[in-house]
Amino acid sequence: MSRKRIPFGVMLQGPGGHMNAWKHPSVPADASVNFEHYVRAARQAEKAGIAFVFIADGLYINEVSIPHFLNRFEPIALLSALAASTASIGLVGTLSTSYSDPFTVARQFGSIDVISGGRAGWNAVTSPLEGSARNYNRDKHPEHALRYEIAGEHIEVVKGLWDSWDDDAFPRDRETGRYADFTKMHRLDFKGRFHAAEGPLNLGRSPQGQPVLFQAGASDDGIKLAGRHADAVFAGSESFEQNRELSRKLKQSAQAHGRQPDHLKIFPGVAPVVGSTEEEAERKYQEIRALVTDHEALLYLGRFFDHHDFTAYPLDDPFPDLGDIGANNFRAHTDRIKRVAREKKLTLREVALNEATPRSRFIGTPEAVADELGRWVEGGAADGFVLGFHVLNAGLDDFEAQVLPILEARGQHRPAQFGTTLRDHLGLPYRDSRYAVPSAGTGEEAA
Amino acid sequence: MSRKRIPFGVMLQGPGGHMNAWKHPSVPADASVNFEHYVRAARQAEKAGIAFVFIADGLYINEVSIPHFLNRFEPIALLSALAASTASIGLVGTLSTSYSDPFTVARQFGSIDVISGGRAGWNAVTSPLEGSARNYNRDKHPEHALRYEIAGEHIEVVKGLWDSWDDDAFPRDRETGRYADFTKMHRLDFKGRFHAAEGPLNLGRSPQGQPVLFQAGASDDGIKLAGRHADAVFAGSESFEQNRELSRKLKQSAQAHGRQPDHLKIFPGVAPVVGSTEEEAERKYQEIRALVTDHEALLYLGRFFDHHDFTAYPLDDPFPDLGDIGANNFRAHTDRIKRVAREKKLTLREVALNEATPRSRFIGTPEAVADELGRWVEGGAADGFVLGFHVLNAGLDDFEAQVLPILEARGQHRPAQFGTTLRDHLGLPYRDSRYAVPSAGTGEEAA
Ligand SMILES: Cc1cc2nc3c(=O)[nH]c(=O)nc-3n(C[C@H](O)[C@H](O)[C@H](O)COP(=O)(O)O)c2cc1C
Ligand SMILES: Cc1cc2nc3c(=O)[nH]c(=O)nc-3n(C[C@H](O)[C@H](O)[C@H](O)COP(=O)(O)O)c2cc1C
Repeated sequence: MSRKRIPFGVMLQGPGGHMNAWKHPSVPADASVNFEHYVRAARQAEKAGIAFVFIADGLYINEVSIPHFLNRFEPIALLSALAASTASIGLVGTLSTSYSDPFTVARQFGSIDVISGGRAGWNAVTSPLEGSARNYNRDKHPEHALRYEIAGEHIEVVKGLWDSWDDDAFPRDRETGRYADFTKMHRLDFKGRFHAAEGPLNLGRSPQGQPVLFQAGASDDGIKLAGRHADAVFAGSESFEQNRELSRKLKQSAQAHGRQPDHLKIFPGVAPVVGSTEEEAERKYQEIRALVTDHEALLYLGRFFDHHDFTAYPLDDPFPDLGDIGANNFRAHTDRIKRVAREKKLTLREVALNEATPRSRFIGTPEAVADELGRWVEGGAADGFVLGFHVLNAGLDDFEAQVLPILEARGQHRPAQFGTTLRDHLGLPYRDSRYAVPSAGTGEEAA
Repeated sequence: MSRKRIPFGVMLQGPGGHMNAWKHPSVPADASVNFEHYVRAARQAEKAGIAFVFIADGLYINEVSIPHFLNRFEPIALLSALAASTASIGLVGTLSTSYSDPFTVARQFGSIDVISGGRAGWNAVTSPLEGSARNYNRDKHPEHALRYEIAGEHIEVVKGLWDSWDDDAFPRDRETGRYADFTKMHRLDFKGRFHAAEGPLNLGRSPQGQPVLFQAGASDDGIKLAGRHADAVFAGSESFEQNRELSRKLKQSAQAHGRQPDHLKIFPGVAPVVGSTEEEAERKYQEIRALVTDHEALLYLGRFFDHHDFTAYPLDDPFPDLGDIGANNFRAHTDRIKRVAREKKLTLREVALNEATPRSRFIGTPEAVADELGRWVEGGAADGFVLGFHVLNAGLDDFEAQVLPILEARGQHRPAQFGTTLRDHLGLPYRDSRYAVPSAGTGEEAA
């Protein structure tokens, strides 16, 4: 078989992606602040040949937050500790462009890239939760379009700072006494509307040239930003058609920014549930679905709509008309919820339970799941996947034991890493500096 | 012997504290970005019973910066990776209150405290370098008094956020489905002049209650801040008398803020150079001194005098009359340089070389160095020391092999940690939450 090998990432968010994953017997209840739990999962994934771990994040909690979000590790601290605890797996973490300083972000991900030997990735998000502003001394959370303008500048500064020093700027020659070659230092002198940085960064280039840049917004603004800056997109939808369409748009956007379309990868997030028979898979799915009560599901739904109180509506009436509520948060997602509810005439209870435990397209026998994953990649809907198991331990165990061997037999997986760096794992080239003399078509235009 | 055991910290700043430490054969030339170098030193220190490692930091570089500052790890990333690479040593890192967000700082150090099992410490500094402002999109670097006002609020917010959840706020009961007890959650709702945060933090209390707080400013404002907030002070002077005086003021300041004076520790930074004879110690010192050329020493000296060009003067003439040059930034230091040069009739070369490689009080035989360290602790000038070796590897090897055994024989050291947490190592109690019902005199007033 000569089929394309599929890179996988795995979401590590404490006990799993499900809002009540902490209740599942396969995970420690305190998983989100249990470092040993993270190490065990990262090493298991590494050994299984999974390309990277992925850490999500949030900057605001209240009484209706997902339980394991109340008490979770900060991503930089977690990633760096995982860098020291693993050998070859990629390490991608979420950090907000709306509530951070580019100079610090450049240093932190650059440092993790050096510490890990070239395995760092930054998932740059604009932060959907309004309350974040109140934790960061801001008058208000910037609205959607403005957040993306700020993000564009932020990322421009971070990438500029990462190129502060040429690859060979530090001869460190004890004979001549020359530590640095200042002709290979570049001050950024960036002055924008929202960000400014003189530079240079007090850190040289890292093993990947630059850490990998992920992006996770699928709106038009998100697509534009990804086309300009990102190496990879973490996509939220589990629809083949939507991902194929998103992939098309993303690669077009990359091309429009003078980049090779193949240098922007799309990773849909999927939540496989596998069983040796279809019935067993369905039973496992129902077991996960039973982790959440109706009331909890309503609170969960509210999260996407700026904590709108859905308990005020009758449970078995049609999903309510919400007007503009939710448009400034997870917009692409809330628009979809509204549309599907209307089209399928769903009740509030159905919408809430479906959101709390989405019925994945990837529930079934190992063969069926492997087929579907392969179909997505062959069909142009994915370059790889982020595995967001409902319950991390149970999900990863099953996937490793049952699905990966099938993909391996088909030439779509190997229980070893692709190469040394995360860029290797993802099929991305070393990132040349914007100041590098162009060599034979290796890199691409610096954004 | 029943003498008091002395806690030591060791500065890990790449190759060492000396401006040209990178040239010394005992260290890797790229030490400041060589993670293995850090791990090796941290483990060696841990095994020797040293209480903590200490990471300095800076937010601005240019062509005249100390070479190994041009390219260094960001402290959070470094500390967290070291947390995963060590078992019992304390982990203290520098982070600026002038260029960071309290919500993020609280999360990062809180996370490291959990990941490390209670070994984290934050050295809160206000940042001395004007250029930092230009890397962080600020009009200007806030002046000294203002920096300390900002720092006071910043630390107040961080400490407040650390108490967001009571120690027993997370029952995580799978039977009842109760993950968190919201009656044990505290929103901070802080609104100050410079900082605001609603809270709660999305992280519970950590193994030490709160990470240890270090402070490193010795001005009156610095002393006030330390008295109010700090658990320990990293002191810059190598004078016994000055440290005894500083210690007296610090403990007075703690008392004035309603705290037990013994809960604020003073750690002078010292740079021991030991040899089996006085001559050998002197030879080693001269070897370090020879790492810097006359020209480099002149540039180094210029840093304190607003980059004044000292290369324009004859090297072996008396130190030039500079008038007011240097009175603006490092005044205390430049005044002292001028005074000493006048009193001792030093040449420019001598002044420059003395500045580049200060002659420590701790140069001598192991016995002499051990005596002097002991004298400082007995005499009330120190509760412990931060070892800032000129060259890390050579310095730590000698100190471990020659000085620690003497202190051990005298009952002032043991090659094992004091306890489990950094607070244990420093003789500080668990930090009770401000909301805790006071129990039998364990903690102290919350600041
Ligand atoms: C798959 C996926 C994962 C995301 N992960 C995070 C996250 O970990 N933290 C966060 O603050 N926002 C996260 N977001 C939110 C996005 O970054 C973005 O702010 C939001 O989707 C709104 O942008 P959009 O309208 O372009 O989709 C995620 C979004 C998606 C689709
Ligand atoms: C021993 C010592 C260590 C210091 N370490 C740092 C450091 O790592 N990073 C930093 O930005 N400032 C550092 N500082 C600077 C202080 O935090 C402070 O900004 C400066 O000393 C001015 O404050 P003061 O006038 O109160 O001393 C240090 C100061 C001392 C005395």
